[in-house]
Amino acid sequence: MKKSLMILFVVFATVASFAVEGMFPLNELHNLDQKKLEKMGLQIPLSEIRDNVSKAVVSLGGGSGSFVSKDGLIVTNHHVAYGAIQYNADKTHDYITNGFYAPSFDKELPAPGYHADIILSVKDVTGTINKAVKKGMTDKARFKAIEDAIKRLESDVEKSNPHLRASVASMYQGRQYLLFTKLRLRDIRLVYAPPAAIGEFGGDEDNFEWPRHTGDFSFLRAYVGPDGNPAAYSKDNVPYHPDHFLAISIKPLKKGDFTFILGFPGSTNRYMTSNQLDFYLNKQIPLRLQLFNDIIDKLNKIGSESKTNQIRVAFWVKMLNNSMKYYQGVYDGLRRDEAVVLFQKRDADLQKWIETCKSGSQYKGLIQSIDNVNDKIKPIANKLTIMGYMRLIPTFSTAGTLTRWAEEKAKPDLKRDPAYMDRNIPRLQMRLKSMQRNLLVESDITLMKYFLHQMAKLPKNQWPETFKKAFKTVPEANLSSAIDKKVEDMYAATGLANMVTRMKYFAMNKKELAKVNDPLLKFGGDFADEIKALRDQNESLAGALSRLKPQLIDLIHAYSNNELYPDANSTMRFTYGSIMGYSPKEAIWYRPFTTLAGVVEKETGKTPFASPKKLLELYRDKDFGTYGDPALGGNVPVDFLTDNDTTGGNSGSPTLNGKGQLIGLLFDGNYESISADYYFNPALTRSIVADADYMVFILAKFSNAQNLLKEMTIIQ
Amino acid sequence: MKKSLMILFVVFATVASFAVEGMFPLNELHNLDQKKLEKMGLQIPLSEIRDNVSKAVVSLGGGSGSFVSKDGLIVTNHHVAYGAIQYNADKTHDYITNGFYAPSFDKELPAPGYHADIILSVKDVTGTINKAVKKGMTDKARFKAIEDAIKRLESDVEKSNPHLRASVASMYQGRQYLLFTKLRLRDIRLVYAPPAAIGEFGGDEDNFEWPRHTGDFSFLRAYVGPDGNPAAYSKDNVPYHPDHFLAISIKPLKKGDFTFILGFPGSTNRYMTSNQLDFYLNKQIPLRLQLFNDIIDKLNKIGSESKTNQIRVAFWVKMLNNSMKYYQGVYDGLRRDEAVVLFQKRDADLQKWIETCKSGSQYKGLIQSIDNVNDKIKPIANKLTIMGYMRLIPTFSTAGTLTRWAEEKAKPDLKRDPAYMDRNIPRLQMRLKSMQRNLLVESDITLMKYFLHQMAKLPKNQWPETFKKAFKTVPEANLSSAIDKKVEDMYAATGLANMVTRMKYFAMNKKELAKVNDPLLKFGGDFADEIKALRDQNESLAGALSRLKPQLIDLIHAYSNNELYPDANSTMRFTYGSIMGYSPKEAIWYRPFTTLAGVVEKETGKTPFASPKKLLELYRDKDFGTYGDPALGGNVPVDFLTDNDTTGGNSGSPTLNGKGQLIGLLFDGNYESISADYYFNPALTRSIVADADYMVFILAKFSNAQNLLKEMTIIQ
Repeated sequence: MKKSLMILFVVFATVASFAVEGMFPLNELHNLDQKKLEKMGLQIPLSEIRDNVSKAVVSLGGGSGSFVSKDGLIVTNHHVAYGAIQYNADKTHDYITNGFYAPSFDKELPAPGYHADIILSVKDVTGTINKAVKKGMTDKARFKAIEDAIKRLESDVEKSNPHLRASVASMYQGRQYLLFTKLRLRDIRLVYAPPAAIGEFGGDEDNFEWPRHTGDFSFLRAYVGPDGNPAAYSKDNVPYHPDHFLAISIKPLKKGDFTFILGFPGSTNRYMTSNQLDFYLNKQIPLRLQLFNDIIDKLNKIGSESKTNQIRVAFWVKMLNNSMKYYQGVYDGLRRDEAVVLFQKRDADLQKWIETCKSGSQYKGLIQSIDNVNDKIKPIANKLTIMGYMRLIPTFSTAGTLTRWAEEKAKPDLKRDPAYMDRNIPRLQMRLKSMQRNLLVESDITLMKYFLHQMAKLPKNQWPETFKKAFKTVPEANLSSAIDKKVEDMYAATGLANMVTRMKYFAMNKKELAKVNDPLLKFGGDFADEIKALRDQNESLAGALSRLKPQLIDLIHAYSNNELYPDANSTMRFTYGSIMGYSPKEAIWYRPFTTLAGVVEKETGKTPFASPKKLLELYRDKDFGTYGDPALGGNVPVDFLTDNDTTGGNSGSPTLNGKGQLIGLLFDGNYESISADYYFNPALTRSIVADADYMVFILAKFSNAQNLLKEMTIIQ
Repeated sequence: MKKSLMILFVVFATVASFAVEGMFPLNELHNLDQKKLEKMGLQIPLSEIRDNVSKAVVSLGGGSGSFVSKDGLIVTNHHVAYGAIQYNADKTHDYITNGFYAPSFDKELPAPGYHADIILSVKDVTGTINKAVKKGMTDKARFKAIEDAIKRLESDVEKSNPHLRASVASMYQGRQYLLFTKLRLRDIRLVYAPPAAIGEFGGDEDNFEWPRHTGDFSFLRAYVGPDGNPAAYSKDNVPYHPDHFLAISIKPLKKGDFTFILGFPGSTNRYMTSNQLDFYLNKQIPLRLQLFNDIIDKLNKIGSESKTNQIRVAFWVKMLNNSMKYYQGVYDGLRRDEAVVLFQKRDADLQKWIETCKSGSQYKGLIQSIDNVNDKIKPIANKLTIMGYMRLIPTFSTAGTLTRWAEEKAKPDLKRDPAYMDRNIPRLQMRLKSMQRNLLVESDITLMKYFLHQMAKLPKNQWPETFKKAFKTVPEANLSSAIDKKVEDMYAATGLANMVTRMKYFAMNKKELAKVNDPLLKFGGDFADEIKALRDQNESLAGALSRLKPQLIDLIHAYSNNELYPDANSTMRFTYGSIMGYSPKEAIWYRPFTTLAGVVEKETGKTPFASPKKLLELYRDKDFGTYGDPALGGNVPVDFLTDNDTTGGNSGSPTLNGKGQLIGLLFDGNYESISADYYFNPALTRSIVADADYMVFILAKFSNAQNLLKEMTIIQ
């Protein structure tokens, strides 16, 4: 009595074309149906993708990239390379506004902080991890045992060779553990960036939107030491020669063309129970939306007071707006798809199968057990969310960081919270220094008051301990003013807003720090300790889930008899599909191609819709060289849509045709796809790709970057 | 060397399908190409439309309607019948929320204020008018002579028979004058209205938008006295029997189907010179948008102070938002089409033709003469606009009305400003009484200050005389506070906010009114006198244009050799086209049909996107009877798009198929078509029609209005 879950999942699809769900790890590619993919347009063996094409793909930390020449040239998104452009830009070299082009190797600029990871090997270490888990362990001990085993595996690799980075990834929520050994190239340089008016055309306004007209691409280059080993930046370094690089095809594309994408999607959560999804959608997201909305209002008000304020809050407002759009997208999408109802139906079907079929009996009570864990989180969830978002107050969160660091630094490296292991300390130190630039004590005070007022609104038995300690004796009528006064007093007395004092605290050990008389440091430290304790409590729950969730995956697998795939977790994935439009709403159809005509149509003369004069002139004169597409009225294509399954972290991923040639760079998903992190709706989930043809057109006709064009293999 | 202007006009069209420009008067139908229309799908002679079908079409004042039964049943838009529904609704009979259905004649409800005009005859009176214009007359005298001749012609008809209404329409800006003689049916009753959740689904948010899902239809019935003559409401009246009524076809429609529309489009202005268009677009519209925006902000602020305030300002805010969207649409559309550049090119071509061709020489200097008239308006335009919008202050505008009425009432009826002729006085009196309901002195004071501050910002030589008199001695530094003080003093002392006082003033003659000591009455009266004087000045300009504009039309006609048509002026027009989607922006395509699925997709549970429970259930159960369309997935069609040329006043117009059967009711245009009032872009101008199939579905499955269904001729 096996049914296909997938059939249930497409009930709400309303158009004839369906996206292909699945982000497949390379070690599972052999499970895919080569014949089916060939029918769709794949022209090379899947083993060729696994063993060869994938060697051209690198992880750049927050994004993905790919080699496009034998000399280590990497193409990625403009927004992935943004830090490298920003680092090198100043008033006289405004590379953000004007773009950048190094016509020769020696003109390329360093990009400190950037690295490119190349996967050398993948090893299944499930056995090692499982051996560390002893029978009868508490869930908390189980969690710790797994964490320790992972740290040890990673450390062993990294100690054996300083050029390597190791990471153990939990696949299928702990059903399998894979050890990835990566070569980390540390000398990355900026080679080419278009003007922001091309590279981020549309800006935040177009974020998650289609039709899109962004030339979101840039070029970096990986260098290694003269001995061929990874090295920090040095003039003597030489370009890295990758095992494989991608050819670029700029032949016209058409609807239905096969596409596959290789990259490092960050995180999805598609194996929830309906109980989990319901709580997340209907309780946790609305609270977050409310918090974000309130905070943005408050920051905007502060920003409206002066130009300086406006600049300082701008970063946070932008970030919060992006987060809010993300959560709103999840909310809208899951409601639109009635995902909770679908999940409830699935859980009921699973339950029925468990109860009526012999092979299901081993899963008896499983869903209930998972929900029991989930139910333990519910009473503390609001408290945790509010406390968690207090990290948005830089001075306050610093108090926590300093307190935790003083605690952790006393431990041996391997025993520390991973965030405080030696490998991560230099970055932490830099962050504590650089935060000074955007510090605005006024906004910290406002937000601190806001968060404490939110806590005051919680039922008293949900009050955080630190909050209770501070205010339990205050009569309810005076609570609001007592909160305001305490916050003002703390900020009047704290040294955390001063960089020198802050770094002095950073150098202290636990005992020294405890002696400092700084009320905000103390208050923030207490909160950090309390969050740590709650997190320990969560570790016990996480340990329980690491037991239960693999069984849920097994259950779904057994019931549906379908090929599954693990949730995204920043490991390399293969996803396939084709070029495909969609209908976002009844009576509206989105074509999967945009062109330069659409760039001009959006032109307002104001950022983010102001194109460079030269680009407008190229359009006016129809000076498209050989880059126009007759099927698009002779126009130059700019972006296109595919139905590949991708998510954040995939940014910059090479999008390839059936021959394994690069045809574009993934840089976003559509608004309707945001909820696909939780439930994949094949009718609406689309990836947004910057067309390689536009990239080459810009290089050739706009930037005259002849050397770059010569270096790459471009198929016309 | 004759060229087609129309070719110039479609240069910017970007899709293959073009809307059909032209709102043709019935007396010019014989000029259209019957063969061409038959090729498009017309199946009856144009003469049949003129002589027969048009007899089913009535003007309902602000909108259009049509007879759909032998017993005077009229179908029109819900928003056209809204006043009739509102008049009959109270707390226990909430016909707005719940809708209304009279299952028999005796249950039908009176709709005072409504009338239906049926055109009896159309006579060309150009000769009579031209005879009134003497050679050597000043432009002002010319204007007056034409106005007087028109009044006389209209009065002659109306005096000959009290059941008739007459109106002389200036066609082609004065090239031709037509006398329309109409039978005015005065006993109009409400027969059926759907709930507002169907009839105005989408509300203001969807105004001018596609995709649209509004069931914008209602039914009225015309009654006459037992003698068959028009009569005021009486129980003894009997249903009117029209000469012709429309059959209703609910056969499935498809893209490309021929459509024609008969109705009373209100106003277009498509024969401007480029100088006129440039001034209107780049000077007058931006000032209006600024004024509206400021006023809405101020009203919203007042509205936020209390629930009462909110209700009182709501009407004005809604009206101003609609106006603002209209002007913004004109602005966006004309900029999008680069209409000024197109008009400049056309004017240059006309000028060249005038200068180089023999037949053009008679138009020498014509465009310059028109522009000279236009240039005379420019220096006073801002002043006039600001003064004009002061009518938005009810108490202030009443001061002007009372002052003008005291002046005009002394004159014989035929010599008065038409607004103050006896035929219009009862309505005026009612308005002055009913304004009390929404009066909010606080908002009048705020707006009055705002307008006077705007005047203060004008160059001193553009200050209105009344303003100058009040403030000329005030030093500039004190001007702002002096304005505020004067406004507050006037409102402290005025009786205009009091209904009894206001109606006392209304009864006074000029001498009596002059003796009243009411500062706001005096101030507003002075402004009204000044506006009158400026209008007199405008009459001279209007007189000049009535000489020049017909020549411009002749010139364009001679040059382009194309069939032209007069601007819309609330006379009956025929426009043809077909069912057709469009592309509002690159990569987006709008399909020309929406369905009940889209209604459900928009459902939020909150007005204006909350559907009645029963409708949602009909959808859930797919209980569509015979009304679903297989081509739309079996769904019930709701609205559709055509490329007919329509504008405001067309609301409720019957949309007909090639056989002259009603297939829907026009109720809106798309946002991109708003600018078509000035320049018609065939690629983007679309009409939005409520599908007759949805109407019949609602009557049958939602309201079970069996008697209505039986009364009509429905072709399935």
